[in-house]
Amino acid sequence: MLSLFAACFSASVGAQFFSLPGTAGDSAMFKNIYNEALLRGQCYSRLGELCKTIGHRLSGSDAAEKAVVWGVDMLNSYGFDSVYTQPVMVPRWERSETEELWLTSEVFKKQVKTGFTADYNCEAFTEQELKPKAKHRLQACALGGSVGGDITAKLLVVHSQQELDSFGKAGMMRGRIVLLNRAFDEQLLNTFAAYGACVGQRYNGASQVAEYGAAGLLVHSMTNRCDLHPHTGSLGYKEGVEKIPAMAVASAVANLLEELSRTDPEMVIAMKLGCRTLDDRLSANVLAETRGAESPVKVIVFGGHYDSWDEGEGAHDDGAGCMHAFEALRILKAVGYIPRHTLRCVWWMNEENGLRGATEYARLAENSGEVHLAALESDRGGFTPRGFGIDSALMPLLLRYRGLLNMYGLHSLEYGGGGADIGPLKRVNPSVKFVSFIPDSQRYFDVHHAETDVFENVNKRELELGAAAVAVMIWMLDQGLD
Amino acid sequence: MLSLFAACFSASVGAQFFSLPGTAGDSAMFKNIYNEALLRGQCYSRLGELCKTIGHRLSGSDAAEKAVVWGVDMLNSYGFDSVYTQPVMVPRWERSETEELWLTSEVFKKQVKTGFTADYNCEAFTEQELKPKAKHRLQACALGGSVGGDITAKLLVVHSQQELDSFGKAGMMRGRIVLLNRAFDEQLLNTFAAYGACVGQRYNGASQVAEYGAAGLLVHSMTNRCDLHPHTGSLGYKEGVEKIPAMAVASAVANLLEELSRTDPEMVIAMKLGCRTLDDRLSANVLAETRGAESPVKVIVFGGHYDSWDEGEGAHDDGAGCMHAFEALRILKAVGYIPRHTLRCVWWMNEENGLRGATEYARLAENSGEVHLAALESDRGGFTPRGFGIDSALMPLLLRYRGLLNMYGLHSLEYGGGGADIGPLKRVNPSVKFVSFIPDSQRYFDVHHAETDVFENVNKRELELGAAAVAVMIWMLDQGLD
Repeated sequence: MLSLFAACFSASVGAQFFSLPGTAGDSAMFKNIYNEALLRGQCYSRLGELCKTIGHRLSGSDAAEKAVVWGVDMLNSYGFDSVYTQPVMVPRWERSETEELWLTSEVFKKQVKTGFTADYNCEAFTEQELKPKAKHRLQACALGGSVGGDITAKLLVVHSQQELDSFGKAGMMRGRIVLLNRAFDEQLLNTFAAYGACVGQRYNGASQVAEYGAAGLLVHSMTNRCDLHPHTGSLGYKEGVEKIPAMAVASAVANLLEELSRTDPEMVIAMKLGCRTLDDRLSANVLAETRGAESPVKVIVFGGHYDSWDEGEGAHDDGAGCMHAFEALRILKAVGYIPRHTLRCVWWMNEENGLRGATEYARLAENSGEVHLAALESDRGGFTPRGFGIDSALMPLLLRYRGLLNMYGLHSLEYGGGGADIGPLKRVNPSVKFVSFIPDSQRYFDVHHAETDVFENVNKRELELGAAAVAVMIWMLDQGLD
Repeated sequence: MLSLFAACFSASVGAQFFSLPGTAGDSAMFKNIYNEALLRGQCYSRLGELCKTIGHRLSGSDAAEKAVVWGVDMLNSYGFDSVYTQPVMVPRWERSETEELWLTSEVFKKQVKTGFTADYNCEAFTEQELKPKAKHRLQACALGGSVGGDITAKLLVVHSQQELDSFGKAGMMRGRIVLLNRAFDEQLLNTFAAYGACVGQRYNGASQVAEYGAAGLLVHSMTNRCDLHPHTGSLGYKEGVEKIPAMAVASAVANLLEELSRTDPEMVIAMKLGCRTLDDRLSANVLAETRGAESPVKVIVFGGHYDSWDEGEGAHDDGAGCMHAFEALRILKAVGYIPRHTLRCVWWMNEENGLRGATEYARLAENSGEVHLAALESDRGGFTPRGFGIDSALMPLLLRYRGLLNMYGLHSLEYGGGGADIGPLKRVNPSVKFVSFIPDSQRYFDVHHAETDVFENVNKRELELGAAAVAVMIWMLDQGLD
């Protein structure tokens, strides 16, 4: 029966010009891999186990250490050639139970009756959810790495870097709590592009406004969605600038504060957060591999990051990427493939707030005598596959499989392929070819770094198709690279 | 910034051979359409209004009639050239409050302690959800069109057409409640293909087993997901065969009954349902159009079905398709496009259990003096767009836009393009060109005809991208057809 994803070209008048279907053997390998993933897949139930028995895996937390043990045991149960860890010291930041954001506004109390009724563009401000009163607790959470604090001050809303500087130079920020309120640019089809254009305010915002005398920072959550879930994420304090507390506010809360700021210059914000940074702690990357039959010292590495933020369960970010990699290794073993090079699945620790695991992996690689042929990262969630970002040098190799990739819905092959966890490898093996797995991006920032990043929001087939896509890519690389 | 969906070809070594990027004017039109959809979109909030103020729209129900009024008012508010209805009599089937399925099994009571613990492949059988006891109420619902009934009988599980016939001929079905338990074939990437291979047991099953003397029918829900939501859908009784009551059981329930049937031949099923068929009722298709500037009698029609099943809110099926069509008409107006031919958005009534609206639309078209150039149907949900099924004659026209389509993630152009609601038009205008909008299919059958097909399960950007895809297709057709 004709697949919904049937290649545009194999089914089009252009077929005779464009289609490079690969050999019958290629086609059988794709089919075997996909059938293994879809009929006997392990990634979904393993992700469920991880999310539901352990939950989030913030670097340095007890949960992350429990996850390392679980991961080694789980991987060992599949009989890979070797399963091991790479110990690494990771930073340790802790959220506290006392984490509150309060709004006091007499104007809001009067406005709300007519103002915030059902808006189907936003799940938040139905009357049920926001009763009119003068003092409201708002949906917000500390940014990862923030210092604690207890501040009450008037709010200043800022929309752009230009405004930040002009308000700052005018002395308007002094003693204020500043809301950086730049939202995603919705016209960008790729939500990662929209994220990239906004995330600076989260990462650098605290020190930027502190330099102008601000007492605290609020930042619009990094999401496309209008809802009541704050999205955390890391910040970096600038050396020599006072460290002020910083929180992400849910997007709907940011919209409310924005609207209110136009009519109520007297509104007061109180932020209270007890988060803190503790001493570094020993943690580990988790690895599993199948030894190469021809050239075991030549390595194809693929993985995701095992740590997560502490909101939600790190299901899409990046439990999904870890499961993609494990499942790809399992599938290739299950279909009886003997790899030419060593295939290595890595779950890097501490991508979110330090990159310590990736850095340690690269350091060990440097002294290992190994050569990394290629490195694939999956860190865009467990959504339906669209294709890959790839090193330009890989295009000739992959063109041979274009017809098959299209048939399996992997239409996008775009130049690029970097990733946070594979980045440090370039310094060690400059010739390493980067690949990034690209699933559909539309829903990623609905859940990213938020309490909604839970197993229930992962679709079994989407996750399995991602694992199959990673497995065929690893197989193609192993076949084509030397 | 490079789009995630950047065309494989425009970003590949093959670019010089494959890319047919269209003119700068084409590119600007695509951009205008997408920006209108993503920055000033109306379809998501309108779908929310429909789902949350009206809910499901089962043919002949009061809710469906309320929806017709709402739809006319809503469409009128956008100032289209004309908004009108086409009255049509529709069938009326009603579910009752008394709809129950009970399992009695002493074996199950003993088994469950060790049997159905947490299975992360299935959201259903955690210990919390299914406590061991001898008598259980199971998750099931009447199939649309079923007669009522009150039957208690032993269960017989059947897996295939062959088994059905051999068990039937052996007299094993007499007086039994039969469970037709063929699940989706998970190796099919296109979930609609898996649905197509299974849905016969739901539509024809009741009469098939009744011919062998069965007293009642249960059918495995038409879904990929293992969960506790039954999925309804229509059945057809065969003339001259006794009409027996029929229910869909949730997929997890089907799995349970399957497993139990191996060890407990004594288990007893009691089904009780009070559904009934009433007299036909007057309803209507809802239409809005922009008159063609060059040839107003030449029509490009596009739409979805306005009726839905009564489980859930008909959000994806097919509120999304209706909103795609309305929004496409709105977008083309909003960007100032003057169509050459008449562009007509139709919300067909009664696709689910009668096709009366589509049949009436075709009948009126036959006598209208109009010529239908093309007909597009969107009835695969509001998920992220992948492309279109199209009439083969359209391929040369669309090839011009291939580069742009790829850039916007619309990689799949496959031959096909039919649809239930546009089907009847072929008889009237044999030269009409069919197009079907194809979003990603992986999650569709999670919600199809089930209580989970609600607005909360529609993603704003996915829906908006679908509307933009339909709008660019209508624009290309209007430009290219004569």
